[in-house]
Amino acid sequence: MDSISTISSRVRLGQLSARSVVEEALAQMSGPGRQLNAVTAVLSERALLQADAVDQAVSQGRDPGPLAGVPFGVKDLFDVEGLATLAGSKIQADSPVAPKDATAIRLLESAGAVLCGTQRMDEYAYGFTTENAHYGATRNPHDRERIAGGSSGGAAACVAAGLLPFSLGTDTNGSVRVPSSLCGIYGLKPTYGRLSRAGAFLFVGSIDCIGPFARSVEDLALVFEAMQGKDAEDPVQSDCSFSAVSNGGKVEEGVLRVGMLDGYFSEMQEPEASEAVAAVASLLGAKDKVSFPDPVAARSAAFVVSACEGGRLHKERLSTRFEDFDPAVRNRLAAGLCAPSSWYLQAQVTRKKLQRELLGLFETHDVLIAPATPLSAPKIGQTEMSIGGKIVPTRPNMGIFTQPISFFGLPVLTVPYLRKGQMPIGVQLIGRPFGEENLFRVARSLEAASEAFRPQIPETFKPKKS
Amino acid sequence: MDSISTISSRVRLGQLSARSVVEEALAQMSGPGRQLNAVTAVLSERALLQADAVDQAVSQGRDPGPLAGVPFGVKDLFDVEGLATLAGSKIQADSPVAPKDATAIRLLESAGAVLCGTQRMDEYAYGFTTENAHYGATRNPHDRERIAGGSSGGAAACVAAGLLPFSLGTDTNGSVRVPSSLCGIYGLKPTYGRLSRAGAFLFVGSIDCIGPFARSVEDLALVFEAMQGKDAEDPVQSDCSFSAVSNGGKVEEGVLRVGMLDGYFSEMQEPEASEAVAAVASLLGAKDKVSFPDPVAARSAAFVVSACEGGRLHKERLSTRFEDFDPAVRNRLAAGLCAPSSWYLQAQVTRKKLQRELLGLFETHDVLIAPATPLSAPKIGQTEMSIGGKIVPTRPNMGIFTQPISFFGLPVLTVPYLRKGQMPIGVQLIGRPFGEENLFRVARSLEAASEAFRPQIPETFKPKKS
Repeated sequence: MDSISTISSRVRLGQLSARSVVEEALAQMSGPGRQLNAVTAVLSERALLQADAVDQAVSQGRDPGPLAGVPFGVKDLFDVEGLATLAGSKIQADSPVAPKDATAIRLLESAGAVLCGTQRMDEYAYGFTTENAHYGATRNPHDRERIAGGSSGGAAACVAAGLLPFSLGTDTNGSVRVPSSLCGIYGLKPTYGRLSRAGAFLFVGSIDCIGPFARSVEDLALVFEAMQGKDAEDPVQSDCSFSAVSNGGKVEEGVLRVGMLDGYFSEMQEPEASEAVAAVASLLGAKDKVSFPDPVAARSAAFVVSACEGGRLHKERLSTRFEDFDPAVRNRLAAGLCAPSSWYLQAQVTRKKLQRELLGLFETHDVLIAPATPLSAPKIGQTEMSIGGKIVPTRPNMGIFTQPISFFGLPVLTVPYLRKGQMPIGVQLIGRPFGEENLFRVARSLEAASEAFRPQIPETFKPKKS
Repeated sequence: MDSISTISSRVRLGQLSARSVVEEALAQMSGPGRQLNAVTAVLSERALLQADAVDQAVSQGRDPGPLAGVPFGVKDLFDVEGLATLAGSKIQADSPVAPKDATAIRLLESAGAVLCGTQRMDEYAYGFTTENAHYGATRNPHDRERIAGGSSGGAAACVAAGLLPFSLGTDTNGSVRVPSSLCGIYGLKPTYGRLSRAGAFLFVGSIDCIGPFARSVEDLALVFEAMQGKDAEDPVQSDCSFSAVSNGGKVEEGVLRVGMLDGYFSEMQEPEASEAVAAVASLLGAKDKVSFPDPVAARSAAFVVSACEGGRLHKERLSTRFEDFDPAVRNRLAAGLCAPSSWYLQAQVTRKKLQRELLGLFETHDVLIAPATPLSAPKIGQTEMSIGGKIVPTRPNMGIFTQPISFFGLPVLTVPYLRKGQMPIGVQLIGRPFGEENLFRVARSLEAASEAFRPQIPETFKPKKS
C-alpha cells in the first residue's frame, strides 16, 4: 500500500478509484492479514459503500477530504455500527451491537478514509504481547515466530506488513508504543485528553488514549490531524486546537532542546535498545542526561491504578463470567478489584507529586528520548526473557519504559529503528503536554536523515509485480 | 463586635485604634469564648503586634487594607506559624509547629485583619456536632445546652455570640453550612477550587473547601473577596477572577431564576426547616420545583469518598496511634482504609455521572434553595433525633441536605432564619460553579427584606453599657 498522500492525491485527481484501493486493502486483510492473525473482522460491505461515496464525490466535483480513499483498520475495541465490540474478549461477543461508530472512525471517514476491518488485541487491552487465549497470538510481519507486541498488536502488524497505510490503536501503559517498537513502524500516544475516546472500550479511564500507527511521519501527522476536534461525548477530552503539523510534520524554525533519560531508562535493556537510543541521540545532537523522577514508583503506581480502575470496570463480568476471561487478564483485574482503596489513593497521590516534578523537566528540554521496549520482539509463547543480564517474565516487562511515561499523560511518538537482517526496535520521543508538534518535527528530521528510520515492508508482503 | 465595615472604616480614619478593637476581641475569646468551649488558643501576642502594625500604617498615612483592624479566628486546622496544627486531635499535639501561616490567614492579614485565635472543631473535621472526645462539646450561644454544629463549631459559635465579626472554617460535607444553620449566621462554602486551601489540614482532598462565617452578607462578601487570588501552593485551586461582590454584595441588575429542590430535600425534616425554606422561597418569588438527580446515591457516594480519602490520609496514624483518636472518628476512617478500591472508584463514577445531570439544572435556574439542616440544634449528647417522624442517629444525619451538594463542588451560601424565642435554622442557596455572585445578590435581598434574616447576638453576649 502506498502512502496516504500518494493515495489521496491520486484519488482526489480521479487518477485512481477509491474502490480499487479499498478492494486491494480488503484482499490484503483477508489474505496476509488473516495469516498473521492480525485481523478480527473484514468489513467489505461498508468499506465498498464508503469507497463508492468517495468516488462519487470526486466525479461530482465535491471535496472528498484529505484522506480520500485511504483504507484503514481499527483495534477491535472501537465501536463499529452494527458490530458487537469484542475488545479481544469472548465475553463481549454476547453484547449488543454498537449503535454507531466511535468518534475517531467518524472523523476519519468524514476526511474520506475508509474503514476496512477490525484488528486483534490482548483481551480488554490488558497485555503487551497480543497472545490472546481465545483468538491466538498475532504474528510479527518481520518474523512470524515472534510476537507483534500489544495490546494493539493486530493494528501494528497490518501497517508493518503494508496491508494498510494506517491503523488506530489505544495506549494505556504502552499499547501503541510497544507494538510499534516490535513491528518497526511509527506510533503516536497523544497527550491524555487530546483525542476523543468516545466509542472506544476503555480499560483505565484516567490513563487511556487512542493513537495511530503509520509507516511515515507525514502519514502519522495526517491521521492525527484528521482526528482533532472537541467532542462532547468524551468528558475527559481537553479543548485544544492543533495546527503545527498541518504541513505534514515538516521541520519548522527554532532549535529544539533534546535530552536523554538516564538511570532507569539506560539500564535493564538489551544492546539493540541502547544502540537505537544512541543513534537517535547522535543524529539529534542530544548530549544532556535527564533524570526522570522515581520511575520505579511511577511504574508501580501505574500498575495499581490500572488494576484497580480495570477491576472496577469489569466488576460485574468478574462476578458472572470469571471462567470466560483470558486467565492472564482476569487474575490481575480480580486483584485490582480487591485491593484496598488506600492503595489506589496512595498511587494517585504519588502520581500528582511526581507529575509536578516531571513537568519541571520540560522547562529546560522540549523532547526527551528513551527506549520504547527493552529489546526487540521475543518469540511467541516465550514466557521469560533476558534483559540487562536478568531473566524476567516477558509479558509485564515489555512495558517497563512506556508505563512510567503514559501515567502522566505525556505525548510520546515512537520512532522505528531498523538494521538490515535484524528485528526492528523503537525509541520514544517524549514531549510536554500538548507538545506533539515538537515530536513530529524531531521525528521528521530523523526520517530525513537516515534510512534506519524509514520502515520497510518485509519482502514476502510486497505486492507481486505483474 | 461591630460589623467589618464599621470597624475598618473607623480604624482607617484613625477614629478607633486597631489595638483597642483587638484587645476587646482577645478578652471576648478568653472569657465567653472559653465558656462556650469555642476557643482552642487565644493568640494575644501576635494579634497585638499585627494591631499595632495596622495603627502604625494609619498614623503614617499608608493604606492599612480593607479589613483594617478587624479581628478574626480560624478553625484550629489552619496553620498558624509557630503553633502545632491540632485539627481537633490529641495526636497532632506532638507534631512539629507550622513553619508559616496558611494562605488564607496571610491574605486576610495583608488586608489588615488581625488573627486573634484558633477554634474548636470535630477531630480531623470528621463530624457535624463539634462534640470532641478530647476537648468536649462546643456550646451553642443561643442555648448552651445545645450543640453549635460541626465540624467548624467553634468558628461559628464565636461569630454567633458576637465575640468576633468573622471566622474561617472548612466544609467537606457540611462543616460550614451545618454550624452556620444551627448558630443562626451566614456561612459560605465556595466553589471547589476557588479559594486556596494551602496550609489547611485537609480531610477529603477531592471535596474540601475553606469558607467564612459572618453576621451579615456584606461582611461575608468582604472576607470572601479578601481571600481571592491564585495560589501556586494549592494545586487544586482554579485560576479565576472575582469582582462581582466588590460592592459588598449589593443587589445588581438582572432577574435571577430561583428554584426549590423538591423530593428528598422536602422530606425528612422538622417543621422549622420547611418553614425556613418556605419563607425564603416566598420572598424570592420562587415557585419552580427542581429535582436533584439521585440525592441518596450522591450522599452514599460522598460517604464512601470521604471515608476512603480520609482513611488514606490518616493511614500511618491509624496504624500507630489508633487509641489516641476520637472513637467516633477512627472507626469510620479505618473502615475507609479497608474498603475495596472498587467501592471508591464506583463512587467517583457515580459522582461524574450525577454531576453532568446536576449542571443541567443550572441551564434553567441560577439559584436553588434547600434546607441547610433537617432541624435546629439538638441537645449536647443527644445521640438520636426525630426528623420527619423517624428516629435517626444525630451525628451523621445533620448533614443529609448538605452532603449531596458539596460532593459536586457547587458554591452554597447558608442564610440564617430567625424566629423570636426559638432556635435558629439555615437555608442553603446553591449556585452553579463560580456563581457566588448570584448567591450574594439573593442573600442580600433577603437580608434587606426581613429581620428574620438578620442575625442577633444573644442578650447575654451583648456588651454591657457603661
